[in-house]
Amino acid sequence: MKVVLVSYTPDSELIIASSASASYDSKKNFTPEYVSSFLKNLAERGHLSPFEHASFTFDIQGISRACSHQLVRHRIGVAFTQQSQRYTKLTEPHFVTPSTIEQGWEERYADLSLACHRLYREMVEGGIPMEDARYVLPQSFETRIVMTMNARELINASELRLCQKAQWEIRELFENLRSEVKKVAPAIEQMLKPKCYRLGFCTESKSCGLFPTRNKVETKNGSN
Amino acid sequence: MKVVLVSYTPDSELIIASSASASYDSKKNFTPEYVSSFLKNLAERGHLSPFEHASFTFDIQGISRACSHQLVRHRIGVAFTQQSQRYTKLTEPHFVTPSTIEQGWEERYADLSLACHRLYREMVEGGIPMEDARYVLPQSFETRIVMTMNARELINASELRLCQKAQWEIRELFENLRSEVKKVAPAIEQMLKPKCYRLGFCTESKSCGLFPTRNKVETKNGSN
Amino acid sequence: MKVVLVSYTPDSELIIASSASASYDSKKNFTPEYVSSFLKNLAERGHLSPFEHASFTFDIQGISRACSHQLVRHRIGVAFTQQSQRYTKLTEPHFVTPSTIEQGWEERYADLSLACHRLYREMVEGGIPMEDARYVLPQSFETRIVMTMNARELINASELRLCQKAQWEIRELFENLRSEVKKVAPAIEQMLKPKCYRLGFCTESKSCGLFPTRNKVETKNGSN
Amino acid sequence: MKVVLVSYTPDSELIIASSASASYDSKKNFTPEYVSSFLKNLAERGHLSPFEHASFTFDIQGISRACSHQLVRHRIGVAFTQQSQRYTKLTEPHFVTPSTIEQGWEERYADLSLACHRLYREMVEGGIPMEDARYVLPQSFETRIVMTMNARELINASELRLCQKAQWEIRELFENLRSEVKKVAPAIEQMLKPKCYRLGFCTESKSCGLFPTRNKVETKNGSN
Repeated sequence: MKVVLVSYTPDSELIIASSASASYDSKKNFTPEYVSSFLKNLAERGHLSPFEHASFTFDIQGISRACSHQLVRHRIGVAFTQQSQRYTKLTEPHFVTPSTIEQGWEERYADLSLACHRLYREMVEGGIPMEDARYVLPQSFETRIVMTMNARELINASELRLCQKAQWEIRELFENLRSEVKKVAPAIEQMLKPKCYRLGFCTESKSCGLFPTRNKVETKNGSN
Repeated sequence: MKVVLVSYTPDSELIIASSASASYDSKKNFTPEYVSSFLKNLAERGHLSPFEHASFTFDIQGISRACSHQLVRHRIGVAFTQQSQRYTKLTEPHFVTPSTIEQGWEERYADLSLACHRLYREMVEGGIPMEDARYVLPQSFETRIVMTMNARELINASELRLCQKAQWEIRELFENLRSEVKKVAPAIEQMLKPKCYRLGFCTESKSCGLFPTRNKVETKNGSN
Repeated sequence: MKVVLVSYTPDSELIIASSASASYDSKKNFTPEYVSSFLKNLAERGHLSPFEHASFTFDIQGISRACSHQLVRHRIGVAFTQQSQRYTKLTEPHFVTPSTIEQGWEERYADLSLACHRLYREMVEGGIPMEDARYVLPQSFETRIVMTMNARELINASELRLCQKAQWEIRELFENLRSEVKKVAPAIEQMLKPKCYRLGFCTESKSCGLFPTRNKVETKNGSN
Repeated sequence: MKVVLVSYTPDSELIIASSASASYDSKKNFTPEYVSSFLKNLAERGHLSPFEHASFTFDIQGISRACSHQLVRHRIGVAFTQQSQRYTKLTEPHFVTPSTIEQGWEERYADLSLACHRLYREMVEGGIPMEDARYVLPQSFETRIVMTMNARELINASELRLCQKAQWEIRELFENLRSEVKKVAPAIEQMLKPKCYRLGFCTESKSCGLFPTRNKVETKNGSN
């Protein structure tokens, strides 16, 4: 997996802060420290709409089609341009191998993946349209996708995708997105966390241990 | 592929017409004929927002993951609930075979698909998480998805997906959606057409023959 | 203000439950009690996307343009058709008076409102386009809007709009929406609450007293 | 009305072109001329999704609340942060006067507007909450709104809002947006046009004369 931030709103954090301020019309000193604490305060109070004024564009290479299928379920504040398997011939057999499979099953997994790609290539060379030949390719096969996401959706999607219960490949993807954002918007990067940090509790039926589940928080409060 | 309309806005066409009328506040006789011609007129003038007041829910079974990956790219006026390969074990090897492959390649295609499914099953039984084992499954493998779409998006998506240039499986899906809509909303069904019907020209670089490309229409006009 | 539920997804709660179940593929008994507790569980775990399969259409009359301006800021899972002041002449001076104004300022407020409407009427009769004459009308003047909202957005919007800090007219509107939903979908109605019920804390800088602010919850937990 | 472009995706046109190319995976020379004709070609074929990768943020001052109410109806690919009349006191009586009213009705219109603002101020000073006092303000009163729109929605919204049939103030607003975009993205600016340019016909019941209505185009074609 290779994730590169190819474009972004310049001075994104300042743009968010000054947009939000326009709505309250007060004069303010926009030092980096001020902007950072202002953004933190907005997020804590749930005022996330100003975060829609800043966007980040990533070139994402080498994720599986299993992962991209999940990724494109994000619908709000996001744009995707994905490499088409209808028009682009996959000449090389690049595919993703989950680490659980690497231990013991790797050879058969790789052999079958290569066999699928061989049949794909033969069919394409034999005149089968690429859009049909690709049906034989496992969903482990790699794709490339350009994604633009605004800061609000980055925060929101990270709450889901950075959770320990998220599927490993999409979690790894969001960790990469976060690393890229850190280079240009460190205050926003601070907000890219699983939702339990904001809630103070875990919404899953069983917690990973980071925060207690909702029930246990209530018990605790009740005991005071 | 099996598509069943499982729920829909009752009297959908009447709801659209009366919602649109409220915005112009005139009294009207809502005979079925009136509603039908009123909707047609709204659509021709591009006033499609009232069509958002009616929705249709479909249970879609037996489409490939290749097809569902395209389908979920629709983001507006649509909701999806898809069978999860993370939590549901695919016990049977159900997969889609494109008709081009049926002619000559079918045996090798089927053999490889079955081999992939065999390895999938062995890995799951051997303790590999389903969410990882599924990476070996070709994107031909079938999925099930519940989709709710409002009438505006049905019209809009059909303009793209019923085009002769659309990928065959998603075109077949939209033909099935259209058949289901016809049973309960015949005036809306009439609007589910490739976009060339509305435009009077084809936007592709080469036309399928139904309508001339934009350039040729201009030439025609110019010659008058 | 008058709010009437004019259309809705039949058996909305059952549709949500069976859509969500399709994604986990288990067989279930769908008694009303089961459906109700199943929906509650989905919501608590933050799995709200199945709630998008059910929609409700309301005819909303007699809210101010101040209120409708806020209302149309909801962008997701919602459709609006509003009475146009460009094409509909407002023959009668219907306007909203906040209760704070009723005490002491009502006469001058009403006189000015009527004077504005009189000038509006004279200008329209004098040939000024309605779309321009309306500029003189106070934003207290009433409008009519047809709104379709899916259950997910109803839950989400209610979390904001039923809060004690929300503006009084839009809070009253959402209380009316809730009453209408209760008649046909009591389990969904139960979820239409300010967000502090879900969070267990208040995100405002000062709480109304219903739940403590986030800081105080952390202190409590810390003391255990 | 004052419109200032305060932020935008750097090299927006290049970002759109290279995002779109990734999906077809071909190597290309990205001269400005190439980019410009590439974008034009994408738009003509209706492939607008790559245009979502570039965004523009505008500080919009001095539009009426009548206009902002229309503006915020755009829901897709757009973000708004509006000056709140709940929390910001309008100390000065700034309002918009339509040009039709300037001719003959201006004095009465201005007098009433000032009277409304006077009552507003007195009520606020008398302890009425700003959020209630503002009900007396005509919708001609000015507001300030920060808007971020992606290039696809700019194209789409301009097709509606630059039409001669659009309401004059929002048309003027979009002419200002277009002028701002021209400074940094001239190829995109070329696409900000009423939709008749793309269609080759007018969808209104009566044309402004720029293009014939749909019926007449068909007749023309039929006569060939």
